[in-house]
Amino acid sequence: MVSTAAIITIGNELLIGQIVDTNSAYIGQQLTQLGIDVKTRLAVGDTADDITHALQQTEGKYQVVILTGGLGPTADDVTKPLLNNYFGGQMVLHTPTLTHLEHIFAHVLKRPMIERNRLQAMVPSACEVMMNDVGTAPGMRFYRNGTYFFSLPGVPFEMQFLMTNRVLPFLKEQRIGTEILHKTLLVQGIGESFLADELVEFEQQLPKPISLAYLPNHGLIRLRLTGKFEQKNSSNTALLEQQYQQLRSQVQRYFVADGDVSLQKVVTDVLLKYGKTMCTAESCTGGFIASNITQVAGSSAYYNGSVVCYSNNVKQQVLQVPEAMLAQHGAVSEPVVKQLAEQVRILLDSDYSIAVSGIMGPDGGTPEKPVGTVWVAVSSSSQTMTHQFHARFSRAKNIELTAQFAFGMLRKLLLKEMVN
Amino acid sequence: MVSTAAIITIGNELLIGQIVDTNSAYIGQQLTQLGIDVKTRLAVGDTADDITHALQQTEGKYQVVILTGGLGPTADDVTKPLLNNYFGGQMVLHTPTLTHLEHIFAHVLKRPMIERNRLQAMVPSACEVMMNDVGTAPGMRFYRNGTYFFSLPGVPFEMQFLMTNRVLPFLKEQRIGTEILHKTLLVQGIGESFLADELVEFEQQLPKPISLAYLPNHGLIRLRLTGKFEQKNSSNTALLEQQYQQLRSQVQRYFVADGDVSLQKVVTDVLLKYGKTMCTAESCTGGFIASNITQVAGSSAYYNGSVVCYSNNVKQQVLQVPEAMLAQHGAVSEPVVKQLAEQVRILLDSDYSIAVSGIMGPDGGTPEKPVGTVWVAVSSSSQTMTHQFHARFSRAKNIELTAQFAFGMLRKLLLKEMVN
Repeated sequence: MVSTAAIITIGNELLIGQIVDTNSAYIGQQLTQLGIDVKTRLAVGDTADDITHALQQTEGKYQVVILTGGLGPTADDVTKPLLNNYFGGQMVLHTPTLTHLEHIFAHVLKRPMIERNRLQAMVPSACEVMMNDVGTAPGMRFYRNGTYFFSLPGVPFEMQFLMTNRVLPFLKEQRIGTEILHKTLLVQGIGESFLADELVEFEQQLPKPISLAYLPNHGLIRLRLTGKFEQKNSSNTALLEQQYQQLRSQVQRYFVADGDVSLQKVVTDVLLKYGKTMCTAESCTGGFIASNITQVAGSSAYYNGSVVCYSNNVKQQVLQVPEAMLAQHGAVSEPVVKQLAEQVRILLDSDYSIAVSGIMGPDGGTPEKPVGTVWVAVSSSSQTMTHQFHARFSRAKNIELTAQFAFGMLRKLLLKEMVN
Repeated sequence: MVSTAAIITIGNELLIGQIVDTNSAYIGQQLTQLGIDVKTRLAVGDTADDITHALQQTEGKYQVVILTGGLGPTADDVTKPLLNNYFGGQMVLHTPTLTHLEHIFAHVLKRPMIERNRLQAMVPSACEVMMNDVGTAPGMRFYRNGTYFFSLPGVPFEMQFLMTNRVLPFLKEQRIGTEILHKTLLVQGIGESFLADELVEFEQQLPKPISLAYLPNHGLIRLRLTGKFEQKNSSNTALLEQQYQQLRSQVQRYFVADGDVSLQKVVTDVLLKYGKTMCTAESCTGGFIASNITQVAGSSAYYNGSVVCYSNNVKQQVLQVPEAMLAQHGAVSEPVVKQLAEQVRILLDSDYSIAVSGIMGPDGGTPEKPVGTVWVAVSSSSQTMTHQFHARFSRAKNIELTAQFAFGMLRKLLLKEMVN
């Protein structure tokens, strides 16, 4: 039998959109990797009725219910007493949590502990406490009617600690056999509809537990095969793999990469493999490319840095763009972006470089160079490629697209120089 | 009567966490601003039963239900035929949408249109079509049992267009009188529990429709007052404002800013006001600060750029950090970060600068400089302030915290120089 799960997030700040719910995505990923089928995700406000209703709706229906949020020292929190009422029992002191709290206040926060903090060590007698080593609100596990309820704090860091160290190990122990497998590949250079037409027969011949999904994202499409198998079995992987290889050969012309990866990862993997370095000169993306690269631990192995040349003065002073060139062609132009790419590669002593200059909007466009006009250059010691494209979306989206386009160009240059 | 709403997002990719649900946050914000009380948010997979169940659960219970996702040209989409069955009727051709599609394919995509695309112009006869000017999937509005259902595509850009231009104007026309108002302020330098203790009496005296919420985020706390008023009334704003001023004076010692703003906005507002410029030298944040600043349209008025000096070579070559200083103190040290701040300010010809150097993890720590060690410097023509702090979280969180800490320091320097 396939195990199913529901995710319940608690907090008005989620409903009014003050916070983007990244917790649910994390929990969804973790449960899916464990072969648990996440069936629904529910967000409710800090209202006793709504939370109770969510508990009633999921109890007995799903094997696993993860609740996040609503735990904390202040008065807007209603979850803990509510859980105590819902499952019956009384509030009791959890001594290990109290000891843990005393330690945190004495040695980490270095503040006196007040009554409000001490209350955090009180827990419903119906629960098993899951020690929260990285915060003050303990996690709680309840069981009734075939459903395990896990109540976790909403602070992402603490929630992740409890998922990894408490919830997932427990589920692994308890789990009944089931398996959900995914394989994703990345294609580029064909529209979703056309691709779907080419894959009609492939989709029709897919064996029952396997399905295909299209996840388009501005010029790139992720194709995801999902197998939902009733029983955990070593042949499941082989069956999915067989279909994946068939899909892969059928989309060969548009194929970019195996896995659910970004163009950035495709590019930086090649750099790592060949021991090459890169750098960037960013005008319109303003450090977005650098920031994305350096979010990855170990990126210093291939990434030297960036000159974020937001003002023309920086283009001139740091990257030697001649004033006359700026005056004649403007900052958003082929000669300027070429100069930026070549100069930054030399200045930052790198094998490859990316340079971008464009108008991201909403303002700054002219009739000749409307908002969305972008020039991109990629450069190596032997050649510099330039290309212009047009981004037609919001400022944030245009910046993201420009980065993606730049990585696509660098990938082409790398393919030319490395593989041939 | 307070109008209530539910948000339903459709798509397996949300449940398995392949995508973070930013749509719900956007929709939640927009509905809240309109005074509609978002009561629940539900995510379901691309499964007819689950979607139908979500419709049944919300019909007649909420005045407004927004559905996103599940519309598109490929075979994993089940929503449109399902809505047609659910509301009864038949699939009919919507001529304006067909004309729009033909235009897009002829003039924007410049590809032939295939049958699969043409099907996108077929809509349930029970719906009112909401023209989607920026994409191929039309929006749809249904009404039954006192509930308006709005079905929107899941692509954020298209969803936002339809919300802004179709859904919200329609709701404004139809809306019954109700008002939800929020006012938020930002404090720093006190723990959540201590603050809550100081505000016990304030909370107790709050008039019925107003409540206070604490939204802590690593050293900063947002305090949000929410008023849920039964009737739209000009006195509501005054009542909330009066409580807000009382709250503001009570937390004066910790007060940072009015509104739900970031330290970054606090700082850049001061720069704008006084016509000053800034730049950054980023080692460990790798362009994160630059990227965040330049995400804001108009940032070129105060932001000149950044040197992302990820490698030591860049620190030496571009920002004149002496090799001996690096050898003696290491890149993560007070003298280096001071030098980076002063040099980048001169090189990028700016009034103020931020420089950061640290070990963001998970690797790279030593016994003397464990992971999380960060040095920050802020500099003006008259002084340079340095400070060390310790970030104890994940790599991504440490980068974010470092940026926040740096803006906090620059704020202090600005307060010294501008206000005094």
